[in-house]
Amino acid sequence: MTIIPVSSSVLRLIPRLGGLALACLLCASGYALGSERFVSFEPAPQDAALVAAGVAAPLLVDAADWPGVRRAVSDLQADVERVSGVKPAVAEAGGATAPFAVLVGTVGKSPLIDGLAKSGKLDVSGISGRWEAFQLQLVEKPLPGIDRALVIAGSDKRGTIYGVYELSQQIGVSPWYWWADVPTVHRDAVYVRPVRLVDDGPTVKYRGIFLNDEAPALSGWAKEKFGGINSKMYVHVFELILRLRGNFLWPAMWNNAFNEDDPESPRLADEYGIVMSTSHHEPMLRAQQEWARHGSGPWDYSKNETVLRQFWADGVRRNRDFESIVTLAMRGDGDEPMSEESNVALLEKIVADQRAILAKEVDPDVTKIQQVWALYKEVQDYYERGMRVPDDVTLLWCDDNWGNIRRLPNAAERERAGGAGIYYHFDYVGGPRCYKWINTIPLTKVWEQMNLAWQYDATRIWVVNVGDLKPMEFPIEYFLTFAWDPAAWPYERIGEFSEQWAAREFGPEHAVEIAALVNGYTKLNGRRKPEMIAPETFSLVNYREAERVFAEWADLLARAEKVEAALPAAAHDAFFQLVLYPIQACANLNELYVAAGRNRLYSVQGRFDTNREAARVRQAFDTDAALVQRYHALAGGKWNHQMDQAKFGYVTWQEPAAEVMPAVSALRPNAGPVPALAVEGRPEGMPVWGAPPPKVPSLDVYSQGTRWVELFNRGDAPYTFTAVSDQPWLKVTPACGEVKDTVRLEISADWSAVPVGNTTAKVTLQPSQGRPFTVTVLLVNPAELRPGSFAGFVEIDNHVAIEAPHFSRAIGDKQTEWRTLADFGRTLGGVTTFPVLAAPRTPGGHSPRLEYDIHFFSAGDATVEFHVAPSLDFQPDMPLQFAVSFDDETPTLVKVGTWESLPSWEKAVGDGVRRVMSTHTLGKPGRHTLKVWAVTPGVVLERIVIDTGTARRPGVRPSYLGPIESPRAGK
Amino acid sequence: MTIIPVSSSVLRLIPRLGGLALACLLCASGYALGSERFVSFEPAPQDAALVAAGVAAPLLVDAADWPGVRRAVSDLQADVERVSGVKPAVAEAGGATAPFAVLVGTVGKSPLIDGLAKSGKLDVSGISGRWEAFQLQLVEKPLPGIDRALVIAGSDKRGTIYGVYELSQQIGVSPWYWWADVPTVHRDAVYVRPVRLVDDGPTVKYRGIFLNDEAPALSGWAKEKFGGINSKMYVHVFELILRLRGNFLWPAMWNNAFNEDDPESPRLADEYGIVMSTSHHEPMLRAQQEWARHGSGPWDYSKNETVLRQFWADGVRRNRDFESIVTLAMRGDGDEPMSEESNVALLEKIVADQRAILAKEVDPDVTKIQQVWALYKEVQDYYERGMRVPDDVTLLWCDDNWGNIRRLPNAAERERAGGAGIYYHFDYVGGPRCYKWINTIPLTKVWEQMNLAWQYDATRIWVVNVGDLKPMEFPIEYFLTFAWDPAAWPYERIGEFSEQWAAREFGPEHAVEIAALVNGYTKLNGRRKPEMIAPETFSLVNYREAERVFAEWADLLARAEKVEAALPAAAHDAFFQLVLYPIQACANLNELYVAAGRNRLYSVQGRFDTNREAARVRQAFDTDAALVQRYHALAGGKWNHQMDQAKFGYVTWQEPAAEVMPAVSALRPNAGPVPALAVEGRPEGMPVWGAPPPKVPSLDVYSQGTRWVELFNRGDAPYTFTAVSDQPWLKVTPACGEVKDTVRLEISADWSAVPVGNTTAKVTLQPSQGRPFTVTVLLVNPAELRPGSFAGFVEIDNHVAIEAPHFSRAIGDKQTEWRTLADFGRTLGGVTTFPVLAAPRTPGGHSPRLEYDIHFFSAGDATVEFHVAPSLDFQPDMPLQFAVSFDDETPTLVKVGTWESLPSWEKAVGDGVRRVMSTHTLGKPGRHTLKVWAVTPGVVLERIVIDTGTARRPGVRPSYLGPIESPRAGK
Repeated sequence: MTIIPVSSSVLRLIPRLGGLALACLLCASGYALGSERFVSFEPAPQDAALVAAGVAAPLLVDAADWPGVRRAVSDLQADVERVSGVKPAVAEAGGATAPFAVLVGTVGKSPLIDGLAKSGKLDVSGISGRWEAFQLQLVEKPLPGIDRALVIAGSDKRGTIYGVYELSQQIGVSPWYWWADVPTVHRDAVYVRPVRLVDDGPTVKYRGIFLNDEAPALSGWAKEKFGGINSKMYVHVFELILRLRGNFLWPAMWNNAFNEDDPESPRLADEYGIVMSTSHHEPMLRAQQEWARHGSGPWDYSKNETVLRQFWADGVRRNRDFESIVTLAMRGDGDEPMSEESNVALLEKIVADQRAILAKEVDPDVTKIQQVWALYKEVQDYYERGMRVPDDVTLLWCDDNWGNIRRLPNAAERERAGGAGIYYHFDYVGGPRCYKWINTIPLTKVWEQMNLAWQYDATRIWVVNVGDLKPMEFPIEYFLTFAWDPAAWPYERIGEFSEQWAAREFGPEHAVEIAALVNGYTKLNGRRKPEMIAPETFSLVNYREAERVFAEWADLLARAEKVEAALPAAAHDAFFQLVLYPIQACANLNELYVAAGRNRLYSVQGRFDTNREAARVRQAFDTDAALVQRYHALAGGKWNHQMDQAKFGYVTWQEPAAEVMPAVSALRPNAGPVPALAVEGRPEGMPVWGAPPPKVPSLDVYSQGTRWVELFNRGDAPYTFTAVSDQPWLKVTPACGEVKDTVRLEISADWSAVPVGNTTAKVTLQPSQGRPFTVTVLLVNPAELRPGSFAGFVEIDNHVAIEAPHFSRAIGDKQTEWRTLADFGRTLGGVTTFPVLAAPRTPGGHSPRLEYDIHFFSAGDATVEFHVAPSLDFQPDMPLQFAVSFDDETPTLVKVGTWESLPSWEKAVGDGVRRVMSTHTLGKPGRHTLKVWAVTPGVVLERIVIDTGTARRPGVRPSYLGPIESPRAGK
Repeated sequence: MTIIPVSSSVLRLIPRLGGLALACLLCASGYALGSERFVSFEPAPQDAALVAAGVAAPLLVDAADWPGVRRAVSDLQADVERVSGVKPAVAEAGGATAPFAVLVGTVGKSPLIDGLAKSGKLDVSGISGRWEAFQLQLVEKPLPGIDRALVIAGSDKRGTIYGVYELSQQIGVSPWYWWADVPTVHRDAVYVRPVRLVDDGPTVKYRGIFLNDEAPALSGWAKEKFGGINSKMYVHVFELILRLRGNFLWPAMWNNAFNEDDPESPRLADEYGIVMSTSHHEPMLRAQQEWARHGSGPWDYSKNETVLRQFWADGVRRNRDFESIVTLAMRGDGDEPMSEESNVALLEKIVADQRAILAKEVDPDVTKIQQVWALYKEVQDYYERGMRVPDDVTLLWCDDNWGNIRRLPNAAERERAGGAGIYYHFDYVGGPRCYKWINTIPLTKVWEQMNLAWQYDATRIWVVNVGDLKPMEFPIEYFLTFAWDPAAWPYERIGEFSEQWAAREFGPEHAVEIAALVNGYTKLNGRRKPEMIAPETFSLVNYREAERVFAEWADLLARAEKVEAALPAAAHDAFFQLVLYPIQACANLNELYVAAGRNRLYSVQGRFDTNREAARVRQAFDTDAALVQRYHALAGGKWNHQMDQAKFGYVTWQEPAAEVMPAVSALRPNAGPVPALAVEGRPEGMPVWGAPPPKVPSLDVYSQGTRWVELFNRGDAPYTFTAVSDQPWLKVTPACGEVKDTVRLEISADWSAVPVGNTTAKVTLQPSQGRPFTVTVLLVNPAELRPGSFAGFVEIDNHVAIEAPHFSRAIGDKQTEWRTLADFGRTLGGVTTFPVLAAPRTPGGHSPRLEYDIHFFSAGDATVEFHVAPSLDFQPDMPLQFAVSFDDETPTLVKVGTWESLPSWEKAVGDGVRRVMSTHTLGKPGRHTLKVWAVTPGVVLERIVIDTGTARRPGVRPSYLGPIESPRAGK
């Protein structure tokens, strides 16, 4: 979108400010994201009154204009009434009189608009002849009897419609007013400022969603509310897509056939202005279900050509009058690969025959028909093996179903007339596990991948699988907004987008906080899909990991509930759907799994607490049900069934048959007090046969943290204890107490008194029954590296963990720039290179690199693990790579190895990060510099974990996210 | 024991009769197992009154006799009072006058006995000079003033003591009167019949038990009752051992030191007549704990020789005056292997040095000192690698800790002066898993292995690890009884032994039933230790396995509770300890695991029933606690702590820290009725993605059974169904109904109407909601093999399962006899060859073999799986083998392969059976004969499972015990 400013827009300049500052900037709700605001609710000298004093300006539209435009005007009419309670008249352009009116029309289709253009009152040169362009402009005396008008002109049908909905948003009607019950703020008066807003149309020509995997949620809901997935439901989908400036839909197809189930559906789609297609594996506008219902013989062109040809001919003939994109080629039945015998030659013949059918049934010049070949899963392999389709067919490249684009056009492919598109996923049914329940899609990741698609010119079609639609509101809007104008939304504006979205839906007061909440929960969900979280996911004994993760959820939960309490009641339903439910449900899910993990760990340790954790699991499982019930009861039951998707109980990739709570144990404590011990870093409860003496990870002068030990009970009666250390400067807290179930003790040091050097100290825990436990701790306080003397990282506990953005130096050059993607990925953020179209670099010398200064106390072998985004080799001749060296070593190439095996890919997408290794030998302790050299674009580095452990000195301990970032000695 | 009949003994001839017949034979309780009964409670003309009319015959014993003998007489005095309420006088032999007296004395130590022998009134030639021999004889006018006497004479101290306790048993005092609260039946009068019973002493010289792994049960109990494991506790152990005709003890040593903890313990052991030693890894009469407490330096002779020599010298000097067996050599500290550096030469030096210490401290002629070298675990390897000890040292061969003897003396070794012994296990702490809780030892297995030991002359020492002692009462008595006189107790008398034991403890009325109960529960426990049972152990979908196993437990449980109800209250405590508790607790444990397995299976299938099974698990876990509480409350809390051993929650071989219930899931059913299906033979619930159409295993005309399918609910509201078949002769029951949770339907055929040949039929289940389920079943009714036409087995469902004793022919010869061991092993019984000392046979021709006639409908590859006892290669040059052929094939040798790898051994002992395979190709369908050829003795064959399945036709399905035995076509 190009904004031609009439007055300056504060929104385009919005910085990421705190809540208070933003609240001033967003002092009125209601606007289109990223657009200049031209509507106000307080009169100003130059403004025109859309509604005032109980009178609404009429909405004028030509009878000759598109029915879809006139229908959109009726939505605008309803929207004005939603806002003001006053229903404006809708009238033909000729003959109406009013001090102010809204004139709507399509260039070349509306005599009204064409007349204004001809008369010179309206300059449509910025949109005329463009695809889906529009402009809004306050025009003086446009027509006889009309003093002023807001003219909404489109270059074509959808251009005009988008212009109409732009006004709807500006007056305060969210695109989600129906789909998410976003409340409309009542306004007694609505004014239009002098504006000339010209939008020259979208970057991506077809921008759509795919309703998929639609049972049980969407199906059950639609059955109850509309009697099925039919036109009564679809009109809501069409309207939503248009309000979001989308234009394209793959309809639900699990047990549904869009064109057949309800013939009104395709007719209305066309009327509304939605370009329909059938999904990636349903050729020639025919749903798979149609074949399931009517097909005879095998779904195999080599055996059943005649029947299939007729089947397809019937399909394209049926829909010939509707705006469509025709899917070509074929996959196996039921979205499965075709038989092994199928081959490239056969598929090329199929495509040729399909185009012959199109020529016969639709248009002899088939190049005028928008066709697409989806290179999904194994179909891409056919392409790579040489299969080709005619130049006018769009190649629809796909992600790996987990948001990582598998392929983008290379330079030659970018010259194709048909261009390229992307089929992307926010929801998926398949391995390593379905994710159908909730929004797990961080915008950061969508931007990083779709930016590649834009830069590589895959801009003909963007379609995203949104599952049941409903819990994906936020990323759907981002996807379509970004598709409209990627240049307007650089990575750094993700925060702005979110805050604008939050302000539009809930008002400016809490916008920053709500933006943080939605980006926060999707970031946490993006670390690992809830369906893949298990009791073992987060370490209960290392790096306080489970506690830290759960604290993040608890923080989001408390903040979300605080926002809810502050919001007006009218906003509660929308807030629950869009913000609160996913946070409550996912926080609860994480609490459940941490409790289940503890239940398992504690049962093996023999802890009295085992049963309390089991009770927590059961309670959380009940809470989950209660949250679903609240969702289903929203707005008088409007969304009943929309949360029917089971999220607990996965044992394979396929969804469970019902919600199944993780299994929990019960423990029968021994009679009497039975003291036992657990220590940080170790899974076992002590005493236990064969365990080495208890020892906690080292304490160090740089981080000055604490280490925990837990006295617990294997018996049913409490005991008391005293805890003492053998050093005056080593503190253990509490120093005494009673243990009914568990008491955690923290060990810390007074570093002003700790001897310089490495010192081993002991803490003795003496229970009132039985033998004492003696825990060893190493205190690291080296003479050779005093705190404050060195700005780099320090090796502690036989490892170094680094957040990638915390480089000591990022060295770029003219061709390659390092950029930090804040909040990208699992922890702090990512670091990557731009531009993404750059050719690979040869690492070494002065070439671009990140440098990390590190002080090592040990020498010898070091294994460096890089956590990088699980991106794929999106160019066939450019495997994603970077290079690594320590100090003056020759850089070693590291392949991200994106697709080398199914298990490695499953691990990477499941973990939300790919781990790649390099090994090095450090000749001596002391300062070293780790260098990460740029090679290919598209590599996003998130974390670096250096393991210097040996068989005798444990290095990196098991955990999901890796160790807490290592200390820096400071400067 | 040699019985010289005075009157004929019914007991020696006891057949295995039903309860009623036996009740007549066992018309009075109280007798020694296997002994002639010479005590009655009704006067007969020739009888003498031990007690009558309130007067008890005096017990006369010389002051010069062994203190241990006089102490045993005081036990007899108490026993007479226990029975009659009348306390007999104990007096010196000289000067007492009585019409009838009991004269007790030791040949060569008792002037009284020696005088009777000298006077010709008593012929002691049958015992004199023998080891532990004794006789009981009614002698007229033995002494002045004594008209008649029952003379109890022993060849030595223990011989006399055994004679005294023989009388105690005969009058009705069980050896277990104290240890298991076996009630004594009150008798107003007790008579002694004219008897001359001469027992020439035991076959096994030293017969003992090892109290081991004694925490938490024995330790906790002893601490509460006696203040620790001290002499106050041990006197009960000593007395028990002597009453059971044992003579030997390895004392508890986990945190205990017998000689040091209470110096009265060794002194009293010697006085009682118990030969003490220290366990297999504690040399020179010093407990491991003594080293732990006082040792300085490493437990490593190569590094700490001087200290160790002094440590050992102190030990043997301390105990030099007590009857002992000195353990030689050494293992690593804590019953672990020594370091890898240890070697044969070092160990030989250790033994030589230990013997030099013995020569110095105890007796210059060390060959007079009973010494033993325990060839436990890796120590046997030292022996096999050439290490030797002097000829007078007894070699103590060991089992694998799981009841399978690893080695027996070969012919040369049988000539050694020191002879050989066996260290055996009823309880074990180690891998694959500890079994410490309950009696899992079938007598059948003890017989089979200890018979080998006897036959191979390993009869110097038999010592068995009995854990805490308490739950092992029954096999302890069997082990010591068998050790006394193996020849008297052939395999076929196990039933008699059990019934006699049951009759002695609980009276004759329920003896047969109680014998069946104890042998029944140990057989079921012998299939798999309770500690190793898991929710997955028994198949829930194949062969109705879990149901069948649980039905066996339910049967035992019902019968045991019925017996309890019929027993007098005074017997309840004993019955609970000896019979009822293990049955209730193990039945409950099995129910718990089956429910836990169902919970897991059902949760994946999405069954409404999931939660009910979870509740069952929780209830069973509580029941387990209640049973422990009842045990602990017995006899006023006498046995508190004896069942403290955790049995649930194993995750490694080591015991869990507390009782941990198997984890169970909860399921949240979907809203409304959601019909689903499960079928026999398949784990999945349907509908499910990717499953083939439902099909049950075939029905056949020979077995004429039924197949099940289950309609279940994935929802929370009931649905109804109708079930119809597509054939008039195929029945499905019930034909309609309502499914709230699950309804099982059985499919059966009217075979008089089923077409001849193979017919595929369909059953259609139409739920009131959703699509029908159609289940296929194959009906096998072949023309070529009509029922009644063939006596052999028939291949059905692509397999043949055979109980080994169901051979068509057992063909032996003069050297080799086939014998069926009824009830041996996991199912019907075992088949093996005798004699066990026979040399290996070369299979083929007319050599001994079992033949199984089988009709196959298929041809091609067949895999034959033999289930054999997990016995080991007990002779170094004779690996256990048999041979297999079909028809006229050359027999193929099959090695039982007893020790080839740790995992295979762990699997075999865990399963209680070893599976070995042979593969064959059957050229054509029709009749074949499977031949199992004898090769080595010691192989016990239990089952044969022939798998004729292919990739397209499933053969044997997963289960623990294997398929139900295949039908025989009958004759």
